Amino acid sequence: MGNKPKVSNAIIRRLPRYRRYLGYLQTKGVKKVSSNELSEMIGYTASQIRQDLNTFGEFGQQGYGYEVDKLYKEINRILGLDREYRTVVVGVGNLGQAITNYTYYYKIGFNIMGLFDVNPKIIGNWINDVEVMDCSRLEEYVRKEGIDIGIICVNRENAQEVADSLIEGGVKGIWNFAPIDLVVPEGVAIESVHLSDSLHALSFMIKNMDPESDRNR
Amino acid sequence: MGNKPKVSNAIIRRLPRYRRYLGYLQTKGVKKVSSNELSEMIGYTASQIRQDLNTFGEFGQQGYGYEVDKLYKEINRILGLDREYRTVVVGVGNLGQAITNYTYYYKIGFNIMGLFDVNPKIIGNWINDVEVMDCSRLEEYVRKEGIDIGIICVNRENAQEVADSLIEGGVKGIWNFAPIDLVVPEGVAIESVHLSDSLHALSFMIKNMDPESDRNR
Repeated sequence: MGNKPKVSNAIIRRLPRYRRYLGYLQTKGVKKVSSNELSEMIGYTASQIRQDLNTFGEFGQQGYGYEVDKLYKEINRILGLDREYRTVVVGVGNLGQAITNYTYYYKIGFNIMGLFDVNPKIIGNWINDVEVMDCSRLEEYVRKEGIDIGIICVNRENAQEVADSLIEGGVKGIWNFAPIDLVVPEGVAIESVHLSDSLHALSFMIKNMDPESDRNR
Repeated sequence: MGNKPKVSNAIIRRLPRYRRYLGYLQTKGVKKVSSNELSEMIGYTASQIRQDLNTFGEFGQQGYGYEVDKLYKEINRILGLDREYRTVVVGVGNLGQAITNYTYYYKIGFNIMGLFDVNPKIIGNWINDVEVMDCSRLEEYVRKEGIDIGIICVNRENAQEVADSLIEGGVKGIWNFAPIDLVVPEGVAIESVHLSDSLHALSFMIKNMDPESDRNR
């Protein structure tokens, strides 16, 4: 691990955005971009962008800027997107199915090897050539198949138990959609998408943007 | 707006978490909680929690703590969750349907009044008693029905155009799932859920947690 830089959570959040904008520039055929141009698009300051990217190496040339293709590829490598991940989805309700289809259609390197549910009506179904299996087989499957990432789309009450099975089975990371902050040991990465928190933040912003809202209702 | 406190984005992100934990305490029948106990559960410091809550008023009593029911209700009010919102979902693919079902089943005060898509195969379908309409009617519908929030689940290429129609129609906020940072005028709240950014952050964390990962693949 010696040569890996310490990276703050804030940078981890910014890197995927850089990648997103660089991917957009690629689709537009843009070959070169300066930190000032990136700044205008993304909204971070140019010096912030230069500093972030310098954390990982020397990608730009003073007075020339960045080569879009090269920087995109470098950021992919930094983000660990230069490899594929073996994943399972646990909880194949609406959201689980949406996430399954999302990763399937976009071919983004997160390959869904297995689907799991507790509902006998769903177990045995096939979604995009993957069978839905019984949750009781989860840990064994994860271990046997060398699964890297578990995607949790079950309800709050069962999420920690599912996480424990995934961890026992040996996953390296968990993408959690259950509305709960999961406890994971060191060495397991955890990333949560709390949809209700996001919606409530929006609600707050609306309330505090619109002085009339109390009167209108 | 005079008596509304200026609130940082960081607090806006923390408030829904407070709400989530207080809701959990309610289901456990807990009546009273101290900032220290909240701190242990949520992971923020007790003084951070007291400071956050003090921004909005005097909810606790020194040496006694917070009444769970009362604080939950107050946070609901602060977050603007003491009212209902009229919403539309634009883009009724997998993710759009998942979000529609999510808001429908959980009865969380964000009522979906209309669904919109451009796909003739989907237009005219009904999902949870709501008909899927043609996107060409979006702006007119939003205006006529007094829609508060537009939920964007279309692809990146069409997202800004959809946002413009929603804004023209008069929405107060947009919940955006398209992988693009939308441009909205002042007075319109915008909250984005960038699923791919989240997944890429997870990938980064996995890569940087596991020194063996390069060798294993």
